Amino acid sequence: MSHIDLSNDLPGIVGLMAFRPETAEPLSALAETLLRADSSLTRGEREAIAAYVSSLNECRFCELSHSAFAARQLEGGYDVVDSIKRNPRDAPVSPRLRALLQIAASVQRSGRAVTGADIEAARAAGATDVEIHDTVLIAAAFCMYNRYVDGLATWAPDAREAYDEMAEAIVANGYEASLER
Amino acid sequence: MSHIDLSNDLPGIVGLMAFRPETAEPLSALAETLLRADSSLTRGEREAIAAYVSSLNECRFCELSHSAFAARQLEGGYDVVDSIKRNPRDAPVSPRLRALLQIAASVQRSGRAVTGADIEAARAAGATDVEIHDTVLIAAAFCMYNRYVDGLATWAPDAREAYDEMAEAIVANGYEASLER
Repeated sequence: MSHIDLSNDLPGIVGLMAFRPETAEPLSALAETLLRADSSLTRGEREAIAAYVSSLNECRFCELSHSAFAARQLEGGYDVVDSIKRNPRDAPVSPRLRALLQIAASVQRSGRAVTGADIEAARAAGATDVEIHDTVLIAAAFCMYNRYVDGLATWAPDAREAYDEMAEAIVANGYEASLER
Repeated sequence: MSHIDLSNDLPGIVGLMAFRPETAEPLSALAETLLRADSSLTRGEREAIAAYVSSLNECRFCELSHSAFAARQLEGGYDVVDSIKRNPRDAPVSPRLRALLQIAASVQRSGRAVTGADIEAARAAGATDVEIHDTVLIAAAFCMYNRYVDGLATWAPDAREAYDEMAEAIVANGYEASLER
């Protein structure tokens, strides 16, 4: 049961956003910009970074939902997402995404944990400054979303089908459309 | 020197926002809503939570800037802010703010670190569900801002005067006005 009375039975961040629409708006706009706006990183790649950081933070709702969003938009689907979460160094993804996932893992520990070597490796694998910037900010943002969702002890569905349904809506309409429901 | 070429010499998050206006917009809107919109927590109290979490994350730019923003808007100024950062349990603030600072400290470690006892203590000290919600989200958001600022290795001015100048602008015009400069 959540730490506060949300007056709704919606799971994870969905319930928090219904409780507090004032903060839901910038939080949704940030997710839409980071994960879906035009970028040289695909939507699937960005969702994979979100799912990976959420798994490192052991945030069940965010891990399962963004894994579903990544699986729908990434070649190889759940197999690739699961392999990234097991060990990004061995995952069957581009060297560039592998290097960006290493930066994300450093950010998850602390901003101060990101090293010049992390950045050089990403650059050597072809990452641009904007891609490095966006990776750091996606990883940092999920250190927020994960703490928000678990810090208020929201609930998370068990069945993968529940997340696949959310994925269908997000892929079709994005993060801001869900506020209007 | 920052990890990426920002093409500007602005400090901390200010330089990052000039580099990437697309993400600056929702990030500023979130700060404005969390720290300045109507709330039963004063602006000074909310800035003190931001400064405290930033000090726990050892993010120099965010700690010094939000300490200045808190000092300007909190009775007791820098003395109270410094005392919160030393040990919130002994700080000369309301029992309610002391309890909310404990929740913020838990969130800084992990969303999963927030206990029912943290929440009960805040409620016993008079905190409402919305105040608990906003405290968790402010603490979580600074786990993002801090990682963003340090993950890209931005620079921070040394002199307190530089932060006092930023405080004057933020207190007068808010977080979104600074985007237009």
